[in-house]
Amino acid sequence: MSEAPTISDVRQAAERIRPYVHRTPVLTCASLDRMVGCRLFFKPENLQKVGAFKARGAHNAVFALSDELAARGVATHSSGNHAAALALAAANRDTRAYIVMPETAPAVKRAAVAGYGAEISFCMPTLQAREEGLRAVIERTGAVFVHPYDDPNVIAGQGTAALELIEDVPDLDLMLAPVGGGGLMSGTAISTSALMPETRIIGTEPEGADDAFRSLQAGELLPSVNPDTIADGLLTSLGTLTFAILSEKLERIVTVSDEAIVTAMRHVWERMKIVIEPSAAVPLAALMESDFGQRKKRVGVILSGGNVELDRLPWLGRAAYTRMHSTS
Amino acid sequence: MSEAPTISDVRQAAERIRPYVHRTPVLTCASLDRMVGCRLFFKPENLQKVGAFKARGAHNAVFALSDELAARGVATHSSGNHAAALALAAANRDTRAYIVMPETAPAVKRAAVAGYGAEISFCMPTLQAREEGLRAVIERTGAVFVHPYDDPNVIAGQGTAALELIEDVPDLDLMLAPVGGGGLMSGTAISTSALMPETRIIGTEPEGADDAFRSLQAGELLPSVNPDTIADGLLTSLGTLTFAILSEKLERIVTVSDEAIVTAMRHVWERMKIVIEPSAAVPLAALMESDFGQRKKRVGVILSGGNVELDRLPWLGRAAYTRMHSTS
Repeated sequence: MSEAPTISDVRQAAERIRPYVHRTPVLTCASLDRMVGCRLFFKPENLQKVGAFKARGAHNAVFALSDELAARGVATHSSGNHAAALALAAANRDTRAYIVMPETAPAVKRAAVAGYGAEISFCMPTLQAREEGLRAVIERTGAVFVHPYDDPNVIAGQGTAALELIEDVPDLDLMLAPVGGGGLMSGTAISTSALMPETRIIGTEPEGADDAFRSLQAGELLPSVNPDTIADGLLTSLGTLTFAILSEKLERIVTVSDEAIVTAMRHVWERMKIVIEPSAAVPLAALMESDFGQRKKRVGVILSGGNVELDRLPWLGRAAYTRMHSTS
Repeated sequence: MSEAPTISDVRQAAERIRPYVHRTPVLTCASLDRMVGCRLFFKPENLQKVGAFKARGAHNAVFALSDELAARGVATHSSGNHAAALALAAANRDTRAYIVMPETAPAVKRAAVAGYGAEISFCMPTLQAREEGLRAVIERTGAVFVHPYDDPNVIAGQGTAALELIEDVPDLDLMLAPVGGGGLMSGTAISTSALMPETRIIGTEPEGADDAFRSLQAGELLPSVNPDTIADGLLTSLGTLTFAILSEKLERIVTVSDEAIVTAMRHVWERMKIVIEPSAAVPLAALMESDFGQRKKRVGVILSGGNVELDRLPWLGRAAYTRMHSTS
């Protein structure tokens, strides 16, 4: 297993990726504060390049490569934000990205990845087909695999979002982020525990994809089995590295219902006037649905991304919801 | 006619309103830059309090009042963002706001105004009924009328958005904002002409509500007649003060089609991940639809607001578009 990154890895990542990513602002919203009864400080990574925090980890991983390795190109399998982020990072390093994508991936995501100049191979929508597709691409091209989350450089890159938030708001009582594969949550936990050791670090996860919750309870890595949630960015299971980091650093994981996710998502659109995807609404859903001692506290919330199909919004009737749900 | 405000009035407004409004960030978007062929610097006033720049002017007007006048409360007629902004400003000054609103105003706007504790009177949806309703409220309460745009303090407040943008990006070649009643455009023009005298100042307006375009062409104030546009924040006519300021300071007004407005609005949601209302998309629509020498230039764009009904988005089929259109 690779070594967990440290806060100095996160700081190095921040230097490395600075020319290529946005420093996103900190947003506050008085009406959401009233709604949940605490003071919220949002880090809106939906406003990040490629519309998600994934730009941070991908750029750190690609720019950490030696010139020789980078010249071989980079590869991954993903239908989502990591694919677009890796494609952009490769373009910024003047090298190739090879993306293996399930043939069911939404058109908008294919278009985004292709728009950054990546070479896409399609496969059947199973993990096995993805891994075989990736192996074939790497054999053919010699490209370097960049894992979407179980990679120290990716994790250190994702930790720069919390690093910036803490630089701007250094006195948070709690720090929340969503948990999918655990890359964002791991990076967030590394930055937070190093810079604000008293801050409570809490993961948030959909009930329908609660492998991290179960894994932390059991003390061993339990994979996702048939995950089912509207938060389509959080379907993946933890990896060995992210499991180890989260086991050490998290106070707990709070799970939320899909209903609360949709409600929280709509509140953010309506009150904060920003477009977030369902996965990004999970921490706010937890604050709305559960009491874990957040009342009157200062709470940092990482909003993970904003890539949604604008024709398929979950509050636009059951039909639209089902369509969205079934493509996730 | 009242005197036009100067840049020192705008600076004084900035000091006065600072505790009550957000300093919104500057956003950039590489994919929109590529789309329009210039470098865009957005001032996202959709992220402002009450979801629109109107919070600036209303707070400046309310906090400029003597204690004695403020104690009488403030009043206006508006179905839109100015009503919510005045209600919030009055609440922040611990006084009353009296809002006369057409009975056709969308539920979400009523709720916003009521949520800030304002007293709402409903009237028929005609200008005459609004003015009569307002007169009755003022007679009954003694409240001070705060005009939504033709007021020097309101204009100076609106000018603080451009002031902040110029502080952050001091070398813009062009500055664009939408024109409705002309308060935002007047304030923008005052700040821009004072601080960046070489910058070209361009108003943008829907073809279906082009009274400012026609007025500037004719050299006299021509009111809107049956304006019809999806940009429901821009239906009002210029006032005498805003007409005078725009006549002096604008290079020109560019008009745009509703089709371009909807396209631009969707691009902003999709690429920038922020929620803007149709009125806010008008400057980008102008950049997409017309050539007025913006190519390769550095262009400031004030995004006016983000108050839309999330169930009625203009790209969700003709039925939804028509519903939205007919309530504007």
